[in-house]
Amino acid sequence: MTPLRVAACQINPVVGDLDANVARITAAARDAAQRGAQVAVFGEMALTGYPVEDLLLRRSFAVDSREAVHELARSLDAAGCGDLVVVVGFLDRDPDAPETSTNPTGGARNAAGVLHGGELVARYDKHFLPNYGVFDEKRWFTPGDRLVVLDVDGVRLGLAICEDVWWPDGPVAGLGELGVDAVLCLNASPFEAGKPAQRREVVAARVAEGGAPMIYVNLVGGQDELVFDGDSFVFRPDAGALTPGPQFIEFTQFADIAPLGRERARAVDGWQVEEVALPARPTDLVPIVTGWTDLDELAQIWAALVTGTRDYVHKVGGRTVGLGMSGGIDSALVAVIAADAVGADNVYGVGMPSKYSSDHSKDDAADQAQRMGIYFRFEPIEHMVEAFVGQLHLSGLAEENIQARCRGMTLMSLSNLDGHLVLATGNKSELAVGYSTIYGDAVGAYAPIRDVEKSLVWELARWRNKVAVERGETPPIPENSITKEPSAELRPGQKDSDSLPDYEILDDILRRYVEQDQGVAEIAAEGNNGAGYDPDLIRKVARLVDRAEYKRRQYPLGPKITPKAFGRDRRMPITNRWHDPA
Amino acid sequence: MTPLRVAACQINPVVGDLDANVARITAAARDAAQRGAQVAVFGEMALTGYPVEDLLLRRSFAVDSREAVHELARSLDAAGCGDLVVVVGFLDRDPDAPETSTNPTGGARNAAGVLHGGELVARYDKHFLPNYGVFDEKRWFTPGDRLVVLDVDGVRLGLAICEDVWWPDGPVAGLGELGVDAVLCLNASPFEAGKPAQRREVVAARVAEGGAPMIYVNLVGGQDELVFDGDSFVFRPDAGALTPGPQFIEFTQFADIAPLGRERARAVDGWQVEEVALPARPTDLVPIVTGWTDLDELAQIWAALVTGTRDYVHKVGGRTVGLGMSGGIDSALVAVIAADAVGADNVYGVGMPSKYSSDHSKDDAADQAQRMGIYFRFEPIEHMVEAFVGQLHLSGLAEENIQARCRGMTLMSLSNLDGHLVLATGNKSELAVGYSTIYGDAVGAYAPIRDVEKSLVWELARWRNKVAVERGETPPIPENSITKEPSAELRPGQKDSDSLPDYEILDDILRRYVEQDQGVAEIAAEGNNGAGYDPDLIRKVARLVDRAEYKRRQYPLGPKITPKAFGRDRRMPITNRWHDPA
Repeated sequence: MTPLRVAACQINPVVGDLDANVARITAAARDAAQRGAQVAVFGEMALTGYPVEDLLLRRSFAVDSREAVHELARSLDAAGCGDLVVVVGFLDRDPDAPETSTNPTGGARNAAGVLHGGELVARYDKHFLPNYGVFDEKRWFTPGDRLVVLDVDGVRLGLAICEDVWWPDGPVAGLGELGVDAVLCLNASPFEAGKPAQRREVVAARVAEGGAPMIYVNLVGGQDELVFDGDSFVFRPDAGALTPGPQFIEFTQFADIAPLGRERARAVDGWQVEEVALPARPTDLVPIVTGWTDLDELAQIWAALVTGTRDYVHKVGGRTVGLGMSGGIDSALVAVIAADAVGADNVYGVGMPSKYSSDHSKDDAADQAQRMGIYFRFEPIEHMVEAFVGQLHLSGLAEENIQARCRGMTLMSLSNLDGHLVLATGNKSELAVGYSTIYGDAVGAYAPIRDVEKSLVWELARWRNKVAVERGETPPIPENSITKEPSAELRPGQKDSDSLPDYEILDDILRRYVEQDQGVAEIAAEGNNGAGYDPDLIRKVARLVDRAEYKRRQYPLGPKITPKAFGRDRRMPITNRWHDPA
Repeated sequence: MTPLRVAACQINPVVGDLDANVARITAAARDAAQRGAQVAVFGEMALTGYPVEDLLLRRSFAVDSREAVHELARSLDAAGCGDLVVVVGFLDRDPDAPETSTNPTGGARNAAGVLHGGELVARYDKHFLPNYGVFDEKRWFTPGDRLVVLDVDGVRLGLAICEDVWWPDGPVAGLGELGVDAVLCLNASPFEAGKPAQRREVVAARVAEGGAPMIYVNLVGGQDELVFDGDSFVFRPDAGALTPGPQFIEFTQFADIAPLGRERARAVDGWQVEEVALPARPTDLVPIVTGWTDLDELAQIWAALVTGTRDYVHKVGGRTVGLGMSGGIDSALVAVIAADAVGADNVYGVGMPSKYSSDHSKDDAADQAQRMGIYFRFEPIEHMVEAFVGQLHLSGLAEENIQARCRGMTLMSLSNLDGHLVLATGNKSELAVGYSTIYGDAVGAYAPIRDVEKSLVWELARWRNKVAVERGETPPIPENSITKEPSAELRPGQKDSDSLPDYEILDDILRRYVEQDQGVAEIAAEGNNGAGYDPDLIRKVARLVDRAEYKRRQYPLGPKITPKAFGRDRRMPITNRWHDPA
């Protein structure tokens, strides 16, 4: 028997842009059909984008999503691929389910729709609803309880959605008992450093449990602070199990699925089962090209930062970005991310020296702009600062902050004049301890490195320069910006180390306190590679972190690359008087 | 048989301040005992404050909370009321429950602890975990499944926590079958306009279901954007059922509970039941004084705004507040809220006229400051604005925004010098449509009227002036600030009505689009008291609302008084291309 060719279509939808997403899915499906696919699988909520958040509380949006899935079925038919079996994630909602103030979504479902012949022929509802980290699915959805199997011309395909495959004894176990020949898993799984390895481990366990190959299809692209890295793959229950696909680009990957020849069942204890028989369209099976190799970790992180920035700018309808360039490493790195994201000729750097700025600050920023070919201008802030300092008699912290704020106002003014989206340049270590000026360096629509700790900022800068050298390009970041001692330059001779521990120590403590939720006693014992730290230092850092919550709330979003990005994955009270006493 | 005297202790805890909360609970319990109480009941999570949010993901915090409940038991004993039965909400956590990345809280419980004789003698875990609106309890807690009954010298008391009483066939039904003599319900139920009536309706249904009186104990006080209004009460299953307590103040209310004489059971189908027998301390039953009358709706809303503002300032450790006063109605109202919250001598108003400011703006602001006895100064922004406009050649929107931003920078500078917390003065209608300048009028730590629509701003201003007259005080708000046409005064002759529909119409559309999640077609048909609106107008407003999400994300918090306050109760994607097509 000829195997069935399944296409895993990794696309970048835009949240809420239903018409465009219908067009995007149709185009990818037609392309897959032309390359021999008989089944095309898209990611979780590919039709609406993910996450739609409380937008799904709008009845009219849910109605629109349900209409869009029928529109997609017709669109596929009109595009000449109505005989392709298309599986796509969408927001379903039982129009008759009661809405109450304590259950406002009524019967909203995180669903997979099966389209064939211009019609919606089956639907599957996600069983396991994640409600931790960035996920709030128990807020949004009602869980499903049915198993769905597609019998496409004798090849039986089971359906699952994302979290369904993260738990044992779930739908995949049931599908295994039914003897399916493969599991199609639709995902909206955002990137974090280390996530690809974690996914493969989980999928390996499920594939072993279900005894059938899994076609794992993820979304790709940025959505506010989430970055979907794609990383769709095919995993088979035999040796050499994984056929990886690419990360961070739209791509269609193919897999041929043959009947496993194992015992089949139509029913399984404890589950309601729906089986739908569909014909397979004729196909010429051309060879499948594989051979994607994994990106190394820094390359993945870089791609996530670039993708998040690019998609934020483009999906909100922007084209150009502006940022302040101080000659320091943070703004230097953000300038390169910006250029990689939207093109150097769409990046507008502004040097805003004050009377405390060193010559090297100005020189390094101008040098970098020239290396990169981005727009650059100087706007000294001395007169603006003087207008405030003179009238309000500012000194000390007030005088330091007004400098940062005059820079922020300058960037926003240029943004108002020229339409650039402003990028904030703060890093995660600063954001953690509140070492930034609210309404100053914290202004902007998007903050590309808000989840990048300072140690990693330097590492990425060196890595990106090295990549440039390997490509025969000029390294974009001046060596001086990488090696100079960090300073906010808000008063004469100021250094970051006046107020903060060395970044190596700070980042180690922050990683333990923030990422791992360790307490003072644990950090004191285990930090510094087991050599430990003074508990007073840990307490000082922990209090800075706790007290900076109000600043983080007003900080622009940025791409999440760690498990605890100070965003929707971590929600702290501002008024919080608890301090770990250990 | 003498009835059992139960005290409902309505207190204002501070999130995370475990030592202070232990002291606060001990003091209230001792006071209740001295007034004859044999049982004292406190609110949900009274020991930790509510909501603790992701703070509960810190193991060391959960350990600390568990230790604090034992510390409280000892503290009560040491205070001479160890023989009082105390029921208090706390964060419990099974130290042996596994934590996984997909279930990071392990066995965290929203629990009621029963303290007696210096020990924790019983605990109850909340069954129903709300996960809508401002609640994320499925993220935080594992649900309970046991019923707990306290037999205090022959009077049997069942326990329930908040959401447990919002559903039929839950713990109250089970307690009814057990034949308890009363249900003690611990709550953390935040204020919204209309909430007290809703609570009473729900509790009436549960009391009918359980057949026993309910002692309903709520928290009081502000926590970030939530304001707990108290409103603890006793509800009996007979006529004249409700004995109300006060809102917005700490208070202890008493109820005498006699055995109902109905059939008792020790077990009930489908539930695990734990019954704990405790002796009752001796008591002299002095008469219970009742007679609280309900506040009218405007008074409740005013109290919520004042409470939220006061507690935010005090709980973050502040004392004084600063705000810009333009002579307009929004800042005029915020000044009065601030003075009612922290005292007129802790309020610092700043008039910041530009060349476009009318004389009446300056006069009205100064007039109001004098009426109220708050500090007031003028800081004209002309030179600061000129420094930006001259150097950057600003015009149009950029010139308008820089004025608002120079005001924001002035307020933040004065805050840096003098330590005032800055209050933002924007109202909900503006926040909804983005009619504010980010980093301009949007600066501040707290925004007292961010959930107050413009129509209600005027109504509250008139109401507050009337209250002043009734008290024989000078009305704080100049009549001119109430009656003048709204203007941002950022260019000559500018009026709000140049860019926005009349506020009466705007607020009607916003209420339907935001509060009720109505779509364009519904609003077009039902708006304007059924007379309808032009769908294009609705679409225009809806798009403004959708596009302003990024501004709202960076706006300071403020007290929530409606079901959809653009805060933790409503989470929208920033990148969202969906527009209701109807």
